Amino acid sequence: MKQSPNHNNPWQLARRAERMNPSVIREILKITERPGIVSFAGGLPSAKTFPVAEFARACATVLRDDAAAALQYSASEGYGKLLEMVAGRLPWSVDPGQILITTGSQQGLDLVAKVLIDTDSPVMVETPTYLGALQAFTPMEPRIVSVRSDESGVDVDDLTRKHVAGTRFLYVLPNFQNPTGRTMVEARRAALVERAAQLGLPLVEDNPYGDLWFDAPPPPPLTARNPDGCIYLGSFSKVLAPGLRLGFLVAPKAVFPKLLQAKQAADLHSPGFNQRVIADVMQGGFLDRHVPTIRALYKAQRDAMLAALSREMPGADEEDPDQRMTWNKPDGGMFLWARLPKGMDAIALLPKAVDKGVAFVPGAAFFADTPDPRSLRLSFVTPSVAEIERGVAALAAAVRENMPVAA
Amino acid sequence: MKQSPNHNNPWQLARRAERMNPSVIREILKITERPGIVSFAGGLPSAKTFPVAEFARACATVLRDDAAAALQYSASEGYGKLLEMVAGRLPWSVDPGQILITTGSQQGLDLVAKVLIDTDSPVMVETPTYLGALQAFTPMEPRIVSVRSDESGVDVDDLTRKHVAGTRFLYVLPNFQNPTGRTMVEARRAALVERAAQLGLPLVEDNPYGDLWFDAPPPPPLTARNPDGCIYLGSFSKVLAPGLRLGFLVAPKAVFPKLLQAKQAADLHSPGFNQRVIADVMQGGFLDRHVPTIRALYKAQRDAMLAALSREMPGADEEDPDQRMTWNKPDGGMFLWARLPKGMDAIALLPKAVDKGVAFVPGAAFFADTPDPRSLRLSFVTPSVAEIERGVAALAAAVRENMPVAA
Repeated sequence: MKQSPNHNNPWQLARRAERMNPSVIREILKITERPGIVSFAGGLPSAKTFPVAEFARACATVLRDDAAAALQYSASEGYGKLLEMVAGRLPWSVDPGQILITTGSQQGLDLVAKVLIDTDSPVMVETPTYLGALQAFTPMEPRIVSVRSDESGVDVDDLTRKHVAGTRFLYVLPNFQNPTGRTMVEARRAALVERAAQLGLPLVEDNPYGDLWFDAPPPPPLTARNPDGCIYLGSFSKVLAPGLRLGFLVAPKAVFPKLLQAKQAADLHSPGFNQRVIADVMQGGFLDRHVPTIRALYKAQRDAMLAALSREMPGADEEDPDQRMTWNKPDGGMFLWARLPKGMDAIALLPKAVDKGVAFVPGAAFFADTPDPRSLRLSFVTPSVAEIERGVAALAAAVRENMPVAA
Repeated sequence: MKQSPNHNNPWQLARRAERMNPSVIREILKITERPGIVSFAGGLPSAKTFPVAEFARACATVLRDDAAAALQYSASEGYGKLLEMVAGRLPWSVDPGQILITTGSQQGLDLVAKVLIDTDSPVMVETPTYLGALQAFTPMEPRIVSVRSDESGVDVDDLTRKHVAGTRFLYVLPNFQNPTGRTMVEARRAALVERAAQLGLPLVEDNPYGDLWFDAPPPPPLTARNPDGCIYLGSFSKVLAPGLRLGFLVAPKAVFPKLLQAKQAADLHSPGFNQRVIADVMQGGFLDRHVPTIRALYKAQRDAMLAALSREMPGADEEDPDQRMTWNKPDGGMFLWARLPKGMDAIALLPKAVDKGVAFVPGAAFFADTPDPRSLRLSFVTPSVAEIERGVAALAAAVRENMPVAA
């Protein structure tokens, strides 16, 4: 025996574990499970969009025709037929051999982090950015560099200024971003892909919401413009259901084999049963019929939230955006980004809003550096229109009661 | 622009990616997909044991009664009812709040590695050990210390000699080990748990095969003897089906919260649909009726393999174990461990065996340090009895033709 250990607690945690923190959103979600609370907090697709009958039929078919393979261990890459279906739906030419099925697109972020991030590697993100990506990257101990972003997307000049040699990638969510609902415009996409190629900066493009456009599809993906310089992440969670935990990534030959090996080590493969069920549901162009119904539902709910915000929020006549609440108008997806009047703090407002019967996520959670304490994320897809109206009225009451007295 | 990048390949891999390698077993499995090959290579449960009708009924029930929750995002910990069922089946008192549902027990290994291993941390393993564990630990860049093991389990004196301060854990698979089929005896378990507590050495106990005993259950788990000093990993893959990718871990309060946070970052949660399907199948004591049928099938197949080996292998009258092939007699599980005559090499034999129509995994893959080139792992659960007899005859022919001429 060579040491004098602590007999009561022999566990020594890895340094990376110190950086891991519980998800703020998941903590808030626990609070909002109280009955009667309208939650604009979670990024939960509307349960109305789950094609339950199709899943039931597909489960029965797969277990009747293909049970031995569906229930057995299988290839880490994924189910061949599903890989071909994914390739066929992408708007650029993709070899199915460059696609890896993941356990939700969250796992894609975990694999990217493992394969590309060393301790203190610079990794660039938008401002603000998806919290789950920060959580996936953090265990590999990167140095996160927050790039200025506006309503049109990443600020390419700020990216250029902040870029340093050895930056592993820029993580970017161009369509109906989580948390802001913003969409990167065509000119900005073209400029970003060109500049990234000049800098030798890989892009990790996350596109869980791209199919959920309301009036017109977003511009083509970044990856379609430079497939060898980008990893693309996609998901079935928003067009079919999150509870099957299936997503995918598309990667160039320079990194695909290592992502595949990381996948083997992480969970061997994603559930083969679920992959066959989703492939069976997708057969015959189901998504082409189903996704438009999701778009229509979410557009109506976005419109209901916008109308309720205009109707209920105090200071509608106020021209100075510091003196009233402001919000954007997302062209798709699930989230709207709002900003409280000057002097208010979304974290401080949250318990008061919960008392009124409504919950949201304070925007501060989504900033890798200096947070904007006035910002908040509102999801318009989980509650019904009636609940949206009730929730926004409750939020307006909380804002009104807590607004600083005008100077 | 601050660097002169490689425009054709901007990807810079993390150092840990260099250590990742494709699974030898998965590469062999690809070869053995040729028709006509009897495979003793894969650790694939017999498809005969999959309760297909029960799964079909459970899928229909879950989608009829609980679709909105089953298909939605859900808690990272797992489905409450399944957590309680798992706790109820464990042979020591476990609070369901200490259980985490994982995407196969492979993910448990990945989470343990993330939370407990720093670069160059000493981590102890058996000799030989489960290849998938080495693959899960490797990305976190531990220094693997291989502890001598024999037919009775880990050599506790060798463990004590090799243990150094800061060793993060000993990974151990006490029941019907993969790859050797060995079971750690009661006295060795008691001695190991006592010595580990003295050393302040945490244990990570992997128990995917414990239910698959043939004549008598194995001794109680290590974790039951010191729950605060152990992480326990379990799986539904061998008692229900691997294709749903569900396992679990039990961890003490000192590490559970960090494992949970690592789980959130890795894939948010394991499929809620699959968790409910398995809970529905398990209701009413299904496993108590089902598992004995798996035991009986695998015992018959083990017996068929032992009989065929005795009948077919050359040198049955030879007393010197260096002059003939030897093998053990596992008391449960899926694998048998064999050793070629002196002067033979399992890796060199493999292509010749495949030519004869049989495949296996060379034992070298399972050693963290100096491999035993004569060793090989034979799975007796995937092929039928007729295939086992044909496969062993083919293996015996390959051994006979490639045996060195006796001195």
